[in-house]
Amino acid sequence: MEELIKNIRKFAQKRDWDQFHSPKNLAMALSVEAAEIVEHFQWLTQAESNNLDPLKLAEVKAEIADVMIYLTRLADRLGIDPVQAAKEKMQLNEKKYPVKKAKGSAAKCTDF
Amino acid sequence: MEELIKNIRKFAQKRDWDQFHSPKNLAMALSVEAAEIVEHFQWLTQAESNNLDPLKLAEVKAEIADVMIYLTRLADRLGIDPVQAAKEKMQLNEKKYPVKKAKGSAAKCTDF
Amino acid sequence: MEELIKNIRKFAQKRDWDQFHSPKNLAMALSVEAAEIVEHFQWLTQAESNNLDPLKLAEVKAEIADVMIYLTRLADRLGIDPVQAAKEKMQLNEKKYPVKKAKGSAAKCTDF
Amino acid sequence: MEELIKNIRKFAQKRDWDQFHSPKNLAMALSVEAAEIVEHFQWLTQAESNNLDPLKLAEVKAEIADVMIYLTRLADRLGIDPVQAAKEKMQLNEKKYPVKKAKGSAAKCTDF
Repeated sequence: MEELIKNIRKFAQKRDWDQFHSPKNLAMALSVEAAEIVEHFQWLTQAESNNLDPLKLAEVKAEIADVMIYLTRLADRLGIDPVQAAKEKMQLNEKKYPVKKAKGSAAKCTDF
Repeated sequence: MEELIKNIRKFAQKRDWDQFHSPKNLAMALSVEAAEIVEHFQWLTQAESNNLDPLKLAEVKAEIADVMIYLTRLADRLGIDPVQAAKEKMQLNEKKYPVKKAKGSAAKCTDF
Repeated sequence: MEELIKNIRKFAQKRDWDQFHSPKNLAMALSVEAAEIVEHFQWLTQAESNNLDPLKLAEVKAEIADVMIYLTRLADRLGIDPVQAAKEKMQLNEKKYPVKKAKGSAAKCTDF
Repeated sequence: MEELIKNIRKFAQKRDWDQFHSPKNLAMALSVEAAEIVEHFQWLTQAESNNLDPLKLAEVKAEIADVMIYLTRLADRLGIDPVQAAKEKMQLNEKKYPVKKAKGSAAKCTDF
């Protein structure tokens, strides 16, 4: 992860893109990339979404990469490691959603 | 990263959430969490977004964690490691946006 | 529609909100409200989404209203009537998706 | 508005698209179109977003039309008129944000 953070940081610096990469703008770009993932799934049934053909899967993988890149970049601008932040949040989730109560309930997975 | 992937996988299995976690549904949840980041920045200027107070920063960090969790979960359901995918994409980006051409140009950073 | 446009315009002016309502910011707010609609549907099956209970329906209606309000406000800042724009686009769609070719095909409804 | 609602309904029926147009799917498509508006603004300053050139303005107009079309279609599937819903919500907003308190405050315009 550390390697990816530095890699993206250097990439942007070399191209003089720091001026465009305010957290506000990066949040916008991140949400646009997330929507590009959604676009691949909008007319599929849930069953179909579990069985993508190799071409579609490669396209979705590229969009997942884009979300990861913008998420990493945004987090870096704010001094955050996204993987570390996710680990900390999962520890809170363990308490917030005890297995007994949350088991099999869609109502409980609205915000992880 | 490998640890986070397994951690989230186990978390969902224990709660019997696999049934809700189709790639279609996870893509939706991911985009909703991305929007929750955007919500924090929508009325701020770019300058303000570079200077969040500690409370706001902690809130944004929690949203970044949520995006990371859903992105990891979605990727795992499709057999993808998001950090690895991002690294591969960055190698393509090096070719797609040569420093000479892309330097200082916002038009060039529309899809990383 | 004309009445709604003026109503929202006056509402914002009275509260001195024009300073925050740049098209950039309004586009962000619009996408956040759209995500709040998505949030209601993310764990439902398609069949369930066709049969909302009255409480859920009222909540979705309020989110639809919010999207309509921000869309109208954004369009107004750009000198556009969204209903008129939609009518013009539908005329293009008639040509773009001839009935014979588009019938029953999900692949054809990716961008209306 | 009534005319647009019927127009879109007939358009979809003729093409046998009702089968794809569950509220769940339409909510996804709506959010994707909203993101396509955001994409036009993500690297612009707020000042630039107030001064679009004619080509860019035409592109944004087409995206606004798409959001309006999917919003109308989604609302129709749920038995809602979006303009009417927006008018009702604006009446609530008048009470929720009294001019005296909300004047000039960005904190107050987070959900209209």
